[in-house]
Amino acid sequence: MDFATIIGLLTGVGLVGYAVFGVSQALPNGVMTFADLQSFMIVFGGTIAATAMAFPVKEVLSLYTNLWAVFKGDNHNDADTLREIVGLATVARKGTADLEKATENIHDFFLKDGVQMIVDGLPEEDIRNIMNTRVENRELREDAEANVFKTMGIFSPAFGMVGTLVGLVAMLFAMGATPADGGDGGDPAAKLGQAMGVALITTFYGALMANLLFLPIAAKLRSRIDKRNITQNMIIDGVIMLKVKKHPILVREFLNSYLAPRDRVYED
Amino acid sequence: MDFATIIGLLTGVGLVGYAVFGVSQALPNGVMTFADLQSFMIVFGGTIAATAMAFPVKEVLSLYTNLWAVFKGDNHNDADTLREIVGLATVARKGTADLEKATENIHDFFLKDGVQMIVDGLPEEDIRNIMNTRVENRELREDAEANVFKTMGIFSPAFGMVGTLVGLVAMLFAMGATPADGGDGGDPAAKLGQAMGVALITTFYGALMANLLFLPIAAKLRSRIDKRNITQNMIIDGVIMLKVKKHPILVREFLNSYLAPRDRVYED
Amino acid sequence: MDFATIIGLLTGVGLVGYAVFGVSQALPNGVMTFADLQSFMIVFGGTIAATAMAFPVKEVLSLYTNLWAVFKGDNHNDADTLREIVGLATVARKGTADLEKATENIHDFFLKDGVQMIVDGLPEEDIRNIMNTRVENRELREDAEANVFKTMGIFSPAFGMVGTLVGLVAMLFAMGATPADGGDGGDPAAKLGQAMGVALITTFYGALMANLLFLPIAAKLRSRIDKRNITQNMIIDGVIMLKVKKHPILVREFLNSYLAPRDRVYED
Amino acid sequence: MDFATIIGLLTGVGLVGYAVFGVSQALPNGVMTFADLQSFMIVFGGTIAATAMAFPVKEVLSLYTNLWAVFKGDNHNDADTLREIVGLATVARKGTADLEKATENIHDFFLKDGVQMIVDGLPEEDIRNIMNTRVENRELREDAEANVFKTMGIFSPAFGMVGTLVGLVAMLFAMGATPADGGDGGDPAAKLGQAMGVALITTFYGALMANLLFLPIAAKLRSRIDKRNITQNMIIDGVIMLKVKKHPILVREFLNSYLAPRDRVYED
Amino acid sequence: MDFATIIGLLTGVGLVGYAVFGVSQALPNGVMTFADLQSFMIVFGGTIAATAMAFPVKEVLSLYTNLWAVFKGDNHNDADTLREIVGLATVARKGTADLEKATENIHDFFLKDGVQMIVDGLPEEDIRNIMNTRVENRELREDAEANVFKTMGIFSPAFGMVGTLVGLVAMLFAMGATPADGGDGGDPAAKLGQAMGVALITTFYGALMANLLFLPIAAKLRSRIDKRNITQNMIIDGVIMLKVKKHPILVREFLNSYLAPRDRVYED
Repeated sequence: MDFATIIGLLTGVGLVGYAVFGVSQALPNGVMTFADLQSFMIVFGGTIAATAMAFPVKEVLSLYTNLWAVFKGDNHNDADTLREIVGLATVARKGTADLEKATENIHDFFLKDGVQMIVDGLPEEDIRNIMNTRVENRELREDAEANVFKTMGIFSPAFGMVGTLVGLVAMLFAMGATPADGGDGGDPAAKLGQAMGVALITTFYGALMANLLFLPIAAKLRSRIDKRNITQNMIIDGVIMLKVKKHPILVREFLNSYLAPRDRVYED
Repeated sequence: MDFATIIGLLTGVGLVGYAVFGVSQALPNGVMTFADLQSFMIVFGGTIAATAMAFPVKEVLSLYTNLWAVFKGDNHNDADTLREIVGLATVARKGTADLEKATENIHDFFLKDGVQMIVDGLPEEDIRNIMNTRVENRELREDAEANVFKTMGIFSPAFGMVGTLVGLVAMLFAMGATPADGGDGGDPAAKLGQAMGVALITTFYGALMANLLFLPIAAKLRSRIDKRNITQNMIIDGVIMLKVKKHPILVREFLNSYLAPRDRVYED
Repeated sequence: MDFATIIGLLTGVGLVGYAVFGVSQALPNGVMTFADLQSFMIVFGGTIAATAMAFPVKEVLSLYTNLWAVFKGDNHNDADTLREIVGLATVARKGTADLEKATENIHDFFLKDGVQMIVDGLPEEDIRNIMNTRVENRELREDAEANVFKTMGIFSPAFGMVGTLVGLVAMLFAMGATPADGGDGGDPAAKLGQAMGVALITTFYGALMANLLFLPIAAKLRSRIDKRNITQNMIIDGVIMLKVKKHPILVREFLNSYLAPRDRVYED
Repeated sequence: MDFATIIGLLTGVGLVGYAVFGVSQALPNGVMTFADLQSFMIVFGGTIAATAMAFPVKEVLSLYTNLWAVFKGDNHNDADTLREIVGLATVARKGTADLEKATENIHDFFLKDGVQMIVDGLPEEDIRNIMNTRVENRELREDAEANVFKTMGIFSPAFGMVGTLVGLVAMLFAMGATPADGGDGGDPAAKLGQAMGVALITTFYGALMANLLFLPIAAKLRSRIDKRNITQNMIIDGVIMLKVKKHPILVREFLNSYLAPRDRVYED
Repeated sequence: MDFATIIGLLTGVGLVGYAVFGVSQALPNGVMTFADLQSFMIVFGGTIAATAMAFPVKEVLSLYTNLWAVFKGDNHNDADTLREIVGLATVARKGTADLEKATENIHDFFLKDGVQMIVDGLPEEDIRNIMNTRVENRELREDAEANVFKTMGIFSPAFGMVGTLVGLVAMLFAMGATPADGGDGGDPAAKLGQAMGVALITTFYGALMANLLFLPIAAKLRSRIDKRNITQNMIIDGVIMLKVKKHPILVREFLNSYLAPRDRVYED
């Protein structure tokens, strides 16, 4: 599990919830003042509706998968992959038969496919082309998915504003519609306050959804994509070096350049 | 039909409509409070006017075609195209005469044109250049069209604000113009409320049009372009492999790298 | 003339003007309420002043030329240019002498210069380099000019806000400066209304100038540049094919890939 | 001197100053209402402080140099440089000794260095590499400097808002702190007006500094960089042509493609 | 120590603090009016929470390291590195044994690793590939870290707004909940003022954190990355020239093109 994400979400919700709880103590309806189903529907529903229009069904349905992926976390470690490739470099120099046997135990699918292509005897250029095309198209697909969340983070404050405008217009007309009550100074201000409070709740929902849900998730997905690109580019370089049977030490030296200095691997 | 787009649009309009209906119950004019032809004209008309200035006539007129295309949907399937190319790979190895016969039955126009160029005996480099140029220029044209909607999504809130400013300025001057009524506290507030309500309706229209129409459509067109780029790049690689008569298994392996793992094709 | 631009501008001005006219009926000064020379000066003058600081004199002076170009329109047709190049392809295969004679009748200056370089016997690579450099630098220059309008579209709402702030600050101090009048509730509100109305007029001017003048013109110039790039890239490819005396059918096939399917040329 | 910049600045300051003068006529303190040292300190000082944090000292100190450069103007003329290179082309064909003598009189430092490398006998590729690296790194450095002004244009309205918030919060608490005065309707409104006026002055300063100083200067520096890139790329192509002793007519033809049609040089 | 950063931070905090002190003189709670723990928690806590969701734990934890790096400063000098490389160029021409001995004394780690690869006898292309990959991946990693601060600079005003909305909604409902007090004009305004003052404090905190902490630090980290790229690209070119044993004078001439004219090195 990606505890940082979960703790982040809980902390954020907790802090805002605590503030809401604090300020609504003195109100007649307490915390329930801030819970308004219709406000929620117009913001969340409107955001989902606009998103369903804006993206192909496939990508919208991938929301759940991605949401899950974000919370599940990613315990991939580039140094382990590097060690695995360096290990294979020794095997690759022995011969294709040995490499084929070793293929079984490779954990990373992308690396496994690459080594399989060496075993199948594909030429170096084809291997590089196929693997590069795969990385590029995976990035395009994942980018499109991360973009769904980013777009939701833009639509949700917009529908928050739409909801507030609906409430505001109605409130202002209501003010104009009751000239008879006009004389008793206090009352209209009270009404106006309450109506405006309701109207602002959608803006509050929109800001909260965007900043505590959609935008952080979009950023997380984007940073996953960047990280995976680095890993897969390292694997491509590794596979090509396996193909041309470079010495394991040179393989390690080269692939180390993908890692931060403190993560580098110096001995098998 | 692209049901997601239609359901998205209906849901969005429904949710906002329901909210509008709910808040306008108590108003004298009911829901009609929110329907104001002049407000609509200044926002929609202003947006169309600015767009007509900003783009060549041809692109503005393509709006209807694009709108239709968005709602009609796109049931293209990359895996089918891949299967079609792999099928052609077997034919291409038999000879040009067989390939020419097979050309009849190709569904995708872009693929058909590519195979026709093989049949016509064009050299590999010319085929690649012609097909690449076609993809690049199609993208430039479609981008320009998607841009029209994006620009409308920027102009419509702007004209919503222009309308609100017109209403606001008039209202504020009207306040100043009736010092005689100044004494009876309630009345000016009522007038002010109503006038400000009218003024805000244009902002409401602008936000609604942008977020429930123009911006989602622009995003949809953009995601179509991205998807079509992937398809056509796959076709170009496929046609080049047909031209040099690569083995169908390698063709499948290579083109699979354009697809998501779950969509890949593993047997004919 | 580019009627779409002119009709767009007139429609936009008409719609906003009609709204202004409608709301200012009841005001003492009528439509003139919205006409304020000093407000116009601070917004338009400020925008021009900031633009004069931000760009070299040459580009600021090119404003008029560009403005004129936008309204005059551009009746260039890529299909005609394509036909002209295909026609030249037949001539080019006959010999340089025939090509030289044909050069006289070429309409497009860029194509004419390219063909002239063939006649002058420049090598293929030099022709390509010279023509590409010309396209790149033309784009850089025109981009800089379109950028002037885009920047004006950013400065004009900013100076609208500056004007509103000046008015607002003065108004608020005036409120504080007349404590003696404080007792008669109605009057200060009226004054405040009028003063705030005047203050908001600059914001209104800024929004109008940006959205009905500067931004649409900037977008139009930008879309012109994109279109001209496509045309000139097509001409470069055409000239190179003339130079190496490709068959007219292949020239047509290749250059067609620059056009939308419905615009393609299939017979001479 | 770059008169456009100076006139632009003076005009802008003049227009805003005239508006400020006009509206502050009726105020007790007149124009001095708008002059508030502490407001200026929080906006200008805050902007400088944030900029000092955001950039290396060297770049912050380059502010003065750049400011001076913007006002001093740039009377470089690409056509003159082109003529100089074409003149050198004739000399270069005579021999290195003649070229060396001519080096003395070259005005442009970048061109002089390039020609010196020809005289020193460096190979074509080294000359191109050295000159390209120089252009790239000059652009990176100048970009970083222009970026300082752009960032100031973003920080100044932000600190304007910070100042306004400080004033606003204090004012609102002051309202709450004087319940005793609550009864005499007019007075609190007057106080509130004055306090809010003071609070808004920082927003006014921030907007003015950004739009009449920092952003125009950043745009000017950016357009200088673009112009210098064109000039230096032209010089690189020119020096390479001198190195390989191309004919002066071809040199002129080629370098002309960097200039706008109306600036091209057609005879020596 | 990077005194500019520290002085910038202190000056900014000082100026804002002085303004806060000034305006809160007359308030009952003095400066403490502006210190509100819950407001701080919702803004700072919310920002941290959203950031923890948005980025991998590793990058969030690197915050402290980066913060320290920003304040510690960077006294690297490109001219010194250039001199070091030119010195090594003389050694490299003597032989690998001499170069190996000189490796000990190299200060810059990146340069040291590069020279070590020459000593180890790696081919030129491998050295270039390894070093380039290292620079690219270092930039990707550092960019991701700088991005954390930039994102915090976006989240903090957003949570400032969330806090203000919570306060505002509560205040408006409270207004509606006390219709009994409605009659005594002054009191509700006082309450409203105080409640709104509290609500605005979060916006103030958000704006301050973003503009005086997160955004300047993000900009500083970004400008460090740019500077380091220039240095490391210079080192790569230098190492390649050492590998092919170019003459020290040419090495100096070439590497000088990475430096600003005033920083160039002309003699050993």
